[in-house]
Amino acid sequence: MIPFPAINRLCSLYRLLCDIQEAGVERISSAELGVKLGVGAHNIRKDIAFLGLSSSSGVGYDVCGLKKLISERFGFNVEKKACIVGLGRLGTAIMERKDLCGGEFRVIAGFDSNVNRLETIRSVVPLYPAHSITDVVRQLKIDLAIIAVPGAVAQDVADKLCDGGIKGILNFAPVIVKLDNKEIFIKNMDISGELRVLSAQMENLIR
Amino acid sequence: MIPFPAINRLCSLYRLLCDIQEAGVERISSAELGVKLGVGAHNIRKDIAFLGLSSSSGVGYDVCGLKKLISERFGFNVEKKACIVGLGRLGTAIMERKDLCGGEFRVIAGFDSNVNRLETIRSVVPLYPAHSITDVVRQLKIDLAIIAVPGAVAQDVADKLCDGGIKGILNFAPVIVKLDNKEIFIKNMDISGELRVLSAQMENLIR
Repeated sequence: MIPFPAINRLCSLYRLLCDIQEAGVERISSAELGVKLGVGAHNIRKDIAFLGLSSSSGVGYDVCGLKKLISERFGFNVEKKACIVGLGRLGTAIMERKDLCGGEFRVIAGFDSNVNRLETIRSVVPLYPAHSITDVVRQLKIDLAIIAVPGAVAQDVADKLCDGGIKGILNFAPVIVKLDNKEIFIKNMDISGELRVLSAQMENLIR
Repeated sequence: MIPFPAINRLCSLYRLLCDIQEAGVERISSAELGVKLGVGAHNIRKDIAFLGLSSSSGVGYDVCGLKKLISERFGFNVEKKACIVGLGRLGTAIMERKDLCGGEFRVIAGFDSNVNRLETIRSVVPLYPAHSITDVVRQLKIDLAIIAVPGAVAQDVADKLCDGGIKGILNFAPVIVKLDNKEIFIKNMDISGELRVLSAQMENLIR
């Protein structure tokens, strides 16, 4: 098991490798990677060692090979099935994002509690009423869910997703959702919380 | 200057303190705080020491006092002015969030490049054309911006906000925005990046 902070950094590294590969770079050193990611070169080498690749010993890492290694270790080469719960403006805006239309992720279901809304949304993604969340997630073997419902119902939605066997949740509702099952991962996209961190950084600068 | 990871944890602690204060808790130990935040008690005490408060020595921290200390140190007691750039579904959904209607944060301006859209949106927040971003941010002394524009124009919008003197940016566009000025803080709300981290955690579990 790789510790979470290393997973997090390896995911940022993966994105960086995609970008520099597109820019035509073939080899890169841990020092250069460190600068680009704002992390020490030692940390980069340690994170990459978790993947079973030893230090680059002066010649740098092969960009394509390293990207492939991360991708295979974390299963990025297998498309993940996703769903969106809550099809208001936020949910529908997310549903149309091109990075969720296949490749790494594919949104294969949308849910809303408002049946009129389900009938009026034009979508290539199949839509279902919210009461069927557990059944549909189970039947379609959906891996990931994006929650975009009002705060008051977010925890209930998360619990239903868990009952259906979801493995990961990205929560945009303005409440912190918690899960008892430690094998289901959740990330709360806490907008006012993030603004608060930015405020604190601003204030910290002038002290 | 408090290091960024400690700022980040102190902001999570602040939110937790708000919640437990609302639940009627008056005192809490670093051990209990650590469990609730998933952080070691030692780390909690070290973070709190940055605020000039020494160890709780067995009696625990006063919830109200600790919350006030964090709030004053990071200026949470002073309302921050925010704006939203990009008034499509995502931007307008964020604009209506109650936590951005005053108190800690108040959205005081919205921007969009589409003049027809500006005329049709019903909003209590004053709206402006995108070409006036720099001027309006400077005149109204706006602290924080939320970017909700298409990826292709996000970097340009960020640069204009910086020219106007913005201090912090939360970016929802599907690209990573970078700033040269190290005194302006940015947080990229990278949806596919966050889904990728969840995928990696899922895969890591079964290895």
